[in-house]
Order: sequence, then C-alpha cells, then structure tokens
Amino acid sequence: MKALRVEKKKLAVKEVARPERGDEALVRVHLSGICNTDLEIARGYAGFKGTIGHEFVGVVEESPGDKLLGQRVVGEINAGCGKCELCAAGDQRHCADRTVLGIVGRDGAHAEFLRLPLTNLLPVPDMVVDEHAVFAEPLAAACGIMERVAIKPESRVAVIGDGKLGLLCAQAIALSGATVFLIGKHAEKLRIAERRGIETAAPKAGAKRKREFDVVVEASGSPSGFVGALELLRPRGTLVLKSTFQGPGKIDEIDQARLVVDEITIMGSRCGRLQPALDLLKKGAIDIDSLISEEYPLAEGVHAMERAGRRGVLKVFLRP
Amino acid sequence: MKALRVEKKKLAVKEVARPERGDEALVRVHLSGICNTDLEIARGYAGFKGTIGHEFVGVVEESPGDKLLGQRVVGEINAGCGKCELCAAGDQRHCADRTVLGIVGRDGAHAEFLRLPLTNLLPVPDMVVDEHAVFAEPLAAACGIMERVAIKPESRVAVIGDGKLGLLCAQAIALSGATVFLIGKHAEKLRIAERRGIETAAPKAGAKRKREFDVVVEASGSPSGFVGALELLRPRGTLVLKSTFQGPGKIDEIDQARLVVDEITIMGSRCGRLQPALDLLKKGAIDIDSLISEEYPLAEGVHAMERAGRRGVLKVFLRP
Repeated sequence: MKALRVEKKKLAVKEVARPERGDEALVRVHLSGICNTDLEIARGYAGFKGTIGHEFVGVVEESPGDKLLGQRVVGEINAGCGKCELCAAGDQRHCADRTVLGIVGRDGAHAEFLRLPLTNLLPVPDMVVDEHAVFAEPLAAACGIMERVAIKPESRVAVIGDGKLGLLCAQAIALSGATVFLIGKHAEKLRIAERRGIETAAPKAGAKRKREFDVVVEASGSPSGFVGALELLRPRGTLVLKSTFQGPGKIDEIDQARLVVDEITIMGSRCGRLQPALDLLKKGAIDIDSLISEEYPLAEGVHAMERAGRRGVLKVFLRP
Repeated sequence: MKALRVEKKKLAVKEVARPERGDEALVRVHLSGICNTDLEIARGYAGFKGTIGHEFVGVVEESPGDKLLGQRVVGEINAGCGKCELCAAGDQRHCADRTVLGIVGRDGAHAEFLRLPLTNLLPVPDMVVDEHAVFAEPLAAACGIMERVAIKPESRVAVIGDGKLGLLCAQAIALSGATVFLIGKHAEKLRIAERRGIETAAPKAGAKRKREFDVVVEASGSPSGFVGALELLRPRGTLVLKSTFQGPGKIDEIDQARLVVDEITIMGSRCGRLQPALDLLKKGAIDIDSLISEEYPLAEGVHAMERAGRRGVLKVFLRP
C-alpha cells in the first residue's frame, strides 16, 4: 500500500506492506487531514520515523471478534500500555509507554490502511460527512481546553493564532457562551470567525487589550506568542498553551515575579475526548467547510505537505 | 519613631514622624518578622522606597469610630483602591492600584507604628502568642496554595526549598492529609519537617523522583529551581511558584512542548487569607517555634537583616 513516510529526515510517499492487524483493528482510510504537527514532525519534531498523519476517517476492515466491522470510524490517537497507573485510571493519553498514531512509535494515517486498538475507535454518525469527520481529532483538541479550564458564559477569552487550530478553538469556546476575541495575521481567516460572531483583531491592535482576559489560548504555533499572551491576562488569569513545535522551542524571558505576583496560571493542553467533538460535528455547530482548503491524492502527499505549509492555506486533505 | 527604611538603595534605621492615621487605623507594632521578600526589596526588588516589613502583630491605637481599639491584630497587607472591578469583586489583593504594606507605595511594619485600613485588620485570639501571630501572614501565603490547587489526601506533593516559606508550605499541605516530600539543602532544617512526619531529601536524591508528584511547590527562591521542579511532575501535574526575587528573575529553558504534551499546569501563588492561618496557629497545628532563630531591637534592624540573609538562619524578629 502507499504511505506518506518520514525516513532519514526525508519525506516521501513509499510503497509498504499493508499492516497486520494483530490484536488491534485494521482501518481502511477514506480521508486524512494534514495537521501542523505533521509539518513539525517532517522538520524533526518528536524524532518520529515512519508513516505520519493522525487525523482520519475510515472503515473497519478487520477487527478482534469482528467488532465495528464495516463501520465508519474516527480514532483516539493515543494507545497506552494498559498496565501502568495512568492507564488503570483511564488516562492512556499520558501513559509514559504510549504510542501515538503517526507521532510516537506507531505508523499513522496518511496511508491506505492503519491499525489502532479497537477501544480507540468511535463510530461516526451517518449525517457527518467524511470531510467533517476528519476534523474530529483537531476539534477534540480544541474542546480539550474546556476539560482543563472552567470557561463560563461571563468569561472573556482571547485566542492567539488564526490557523486551523486557532479557528477551531475560537469557535468551540464561543459555543460555551463566553466572549471570544481572536487575534491573527490573516484578514480572510479572521472573517471565518467573524461570521460566527467572534470579535477579531490584527496582532498590533490585539496587543493593546492588556490585562483584559480571564483566559488566553496560545495557538499561534510560535514561541514568540508566549510573552504577548501573558500581557493580555488579568490577575489570576489562565494562559492555555496549545502549540507544539520542533526546535529548541524554549520559552524565555518569562518574568517569574509577574507569574507569582499576579498569580497567573499557565496550562499545557494537547488532546481532548473525541465524543464531544463528534457531537458538535453532528449538530453542525462548527463552521468546518470554511476551514477546508485543498485535497490531493495520497500519491501527491509530498506536494500536499508543501501546500499545507503555505501562508493562507488551511486544512489540506489526502485521499488514498 | 524608629523605622527600618530603604532609601536611595540604602538600608538604615531612621527617625521619622509617626504616621497620621487619616481614615485608616493606627497600629502600635509589638513585633515584626523579616521575610525573604524584605531582603529582596533591600536589593531593589519592586523598586520600593520607604519603611519595609509586612509581617507584624500589634495593638490598634487609633481607628475610625474607635473600632478594634486596644485589640491585638495582624493585617492583610494588600489595600485595594476600593473602586475597580477587582476590588468590587472582593479581590483587593490584585487591584492594579493597590498599595502593599512595606512592598508597594505604603510604609511597612519594621517601625514603631504602621497604618492600614481598618478592614484589613484581624483580631488575634488570646492564646496565640505574639511570636506565633507574626507568622499569620507567611502561613497564609503557604495556605494560599490550597486556595489555588485542589490538594487531596491521596495527592503526592513535593516542596522544593527548606527555608521559612518551604517549611510552612510543607507543614500546611501535610495537614490536608496529602503525602509531602520536602527537598532542601540543610539537614537541620529538614529535621523540622521530619518531626512532622514529612519525608525529606537533599536536592540530588530528590531530583531522582522524576514524574512522581501531582503537585510541586517551588519555594527555593532560586530561578534555577524551576526546571528541576518540572521534572518531578507527573503528566497533568501542577507546579506552584511561590518565590519572587529581584533581578532579571527570568525563567528560561522551559520546553514548551513538554508543557503541552504532558499538559502541565504552572501556577503563581502569592498571598492567602489570614483567617485560616490564624485558625491553624490557634490550634497549634504548625511547629512555629522551630522556625524562630533570633530577635533584635528595631534599632539593630540593619544587623538583623544581615543575619536573616545568612545560611541556616530562619525567622528573625524585630522588636520596636
């Protein structure tokens, strides 16, 4: 089968053996989505070698006990060891020995087939089209913010970054009734949020709103966003970090005294549960169509990755 | 009256006019305690000029409507503007225009008299001796951790730093039933915690306990403590920052990806409410006596400050 792989620091579509399902489920991929994390991995983030990709929708083709057979599914991307304290507590997302689809120790979704534990798979409701179902994973990551921070209707929330993740975060948070303010560089992307009643601003104008927000979500994918994000927070506010990136990725120049005196909270947030995201997709509560830019056959995966990294391009799909 | 003052970056005991009470209360100071923040202010932290000191017990000598007159009191050190949104919500600790006793825009407690708004003062129960009452403010700062982070009996908490604040934090947290592990450099200080059933270790041995703790409290007063503290945290753990210090005080070398992937929370914590601290002092629940090192007359304030900065010295009192 074809698969988009990172090997010896080089990205290429390769012909590889179809995976054996073992004690897991085998999924025929219908459609996969390119995430910024894929671009970071291609640059060396996480030191991953193998098939990349972790956003997908597909059909179960083989499974233990024929469970979910023939069903259209999306999947939780973290697979824990099943034995440690964290797994026992139901938190395989943080298992130290976990594999992560297309990110850590497990071939990913930009391929004709993938395997995942059966328990990681969730059936997709019929009315959710493939092009929306692929967004279950990134939308879950956006909704994951609400698992970590209490956002109330009276909360004032700023989101920094108008990329795919920032636009999903802004929309998901706005559904909670909170007032959302999106800061980004691209007028045409900001308009997607504006159509959902979200106030927006360019970075220069946004930076003037000092000490106004209860929660600031850093989704710009740039380490330089960090210090500016802190400035927007009221005392006792919470900064949510959503970005992972390759490179030293160090935060510097944080004034520890500011964190202590203003009792600021900084909170890393990665994945979220997929079911609430599927529910939102089923309700049509999120504008997904505006986030889709281009689609390519899997065979053109390298070109598609290059396109996904271009300024102004949002979600790029691969179809095996 | 005598007062220990920082003026033109120089520390000296000066003869100054007794403060006019205005619309606040005038307190005759019985005893004041030297905090590490005082040492930082003498080095230039917060750019403060005036009488330093914010830990005290005293007697109300004048007050509006003669309220609390003649009563022994301790005091909340933050005085808000009373008009802004934060003050209206009862959070004068974070009012942008607040003054802070001996720290921001308000003469402090290392003096014969101080003034504070009447509403900042709390009567001290008779059975709490002056030498313990002085600890109400730093103990409140320790208890403030529990205002910010949910600590449960099953929580595993590491405290870094065996100074006065670290020892108060470790003891206060241990009362919640949580398992507490104190890391510090001074065997004789660690023994104070050990006598309260708290496990302790030197920094080198402590650093081996990677990814074990739900909560880590950084109370070492050193920026270098930060990175090591992160290492001790389990995924989704919380790092509580208690230290403020002079100088660039920048945190560098934080791996943002680690914060996001492990969904770590970093939380600044400064002050806490005084009443719960007074209640603990009344119950004798905290070993305060072991934390008291030396006492000097206010006139010897400069020498006392020098002593308070010495290795191995814990709380130093000044008596006007």
